[in-house]
Amino acid sequence: MPPTITAFESSPDRGRGLARDMRVRWAFEEVGQPYDVRLVSFSAMKEPAHRALHPFGQIPTYEEGDLVLFESGAIVLHIAVRHGGLLPDDANARARAIAWMFAALDTVEPPIFDRSLVQILERNEPWYEQRLRALDGSIRKRLSDLSGRLGDADWLDGAFSAGDLLMVTVLRRLNSSGILEEYPNLAAYVARGEARPAFKRAFAAQLAIFTAASKG
Amino acid sequence: MPPTITAFESSPDRGRGLARDMRVRWAFEEVGQPYDVRLVSFSAMKEPAHRALHPFGQIPTYEEGDLVLFESGAIVLHIAVRHGGLLPDDANARARAIAWMFAALDTVEPPIFDRSLVQILERNEPWYEQRLRALDGSIRKRLSDLSGRLGDADWLDGAFSAGDLLMVTVLRRLNSSGILEEYPNLAAYVARGEARPAFKRAFAAQLAIFTAASKG
Repeated sequence: MPPTITAFESSPDRGRGLARDMRVRWAFEEVGQPYDVRLVSFSAMKEPAHRALHPFGQIPTYEEGDLVLFESGAIVLHIAVRHGGLLPDDANARARAIAWMFAALDTVEPPIFDRSLVQILERNEPWYEQRLRALDGSIRKRLSDLSGRLGDADWLDGAFSAGDLLMVTVLRRLNSSGILEEYPNLAAYVARGEARPAFKRAFAAQLAIFTAASKG
Repeated sequence: MPPTITAFESSPDRGRGLARDMRVRWAFEEVGQPYDVRLVSFSAMKEPAHRALHPFGQIPTYEEGDLVLFESGAIVLHIAVRHGGLLPDDANARARAIAWMFAALDTVEPPIFDRSLVQILERNEPWYEQRLRALDGSIRKRLSDLSGRLGDADWLDGAFSAGDLLMVTVLRRLNSSGILEEYPNLAAYVARGEARPAFKRAFAAQLAIFTAASKG
């Protein structure tokens, strides 16, 4: 029995692959591990049955035999630890790749995720423009540092790792903002991630759910 | 040579132990690993020498021989993996403890950290009250879920783990807000963490830096 993950029944981003199941799908594809998907509705996510899997009523979750996990970062790390291909063998290089996983989720993602939320929830507030500018400033500070560190390397620390996988999924959320293009090496980095066959398979799988739902 | 971490030369919270070196100090104390501390000023944090250790110019960093790490979550995980006492031996229980580490930093911390920032940076903005209320709403949603999951257990999943360590450090930031007290089991959970001898040693060590600086 392959592991089962959960994903949105109805894609909030219309199949752009920005939901957090995308990073888990991509990880599975990179390591060549088949997986099943169970779709959940927004209302079912808040019900006790789903909350038993995910205390905060979100997706994705991960079920494999007796093991239940939540938090996309934890699930990607679990997949990376159990299978080869997403973390270096060398202990120090492995610790550094894991540091980049935390950097993606804890340092780079928060202002980027806030920006999407503000664009949805605060568009009609009187402070909207000022708040968006402030967030864009925070985002640019992170991207500038990240761009400086990446330089002309292909990936953040040697070979492609779970750290790159998470960072690319975080940066992809800026695709329609125009901000990423101010940092050509980061835009190329994201494109490099999106060009990986494993990414393409994961993207197609989540898009197929949206396409099927649109037809239904 | 013990590992060296970095911490603020001048404590922004006046020794309340809310900076992110506190969680790393606590982890060291839980596993009984001695460590050295190098203090850095706010200006030095942005200089190339420190940025070589931390691409985003923050603290803490971790240096041990050839290995350099950044991101407090990654450093705590590294300490927990290298030493006994912060992660269960059973593989599934270990994966769940790591999931709580990610939950603390990625799901619970963001609105709590934003609240501190907004109180400092946006106090004179026209939207201040409304923004604070919105953040308090987000925080209460997370705390309510967390409180429901914790129930009357001592720790989030069996014995005390690195997941609890990070969650307690995240929740401590609410100590002066009055919000934590609305969830008595969470307030007791934080108190249980703060009562651990390892926490007390770590707290005293960071407080000593503030006290010494105040006298100097």
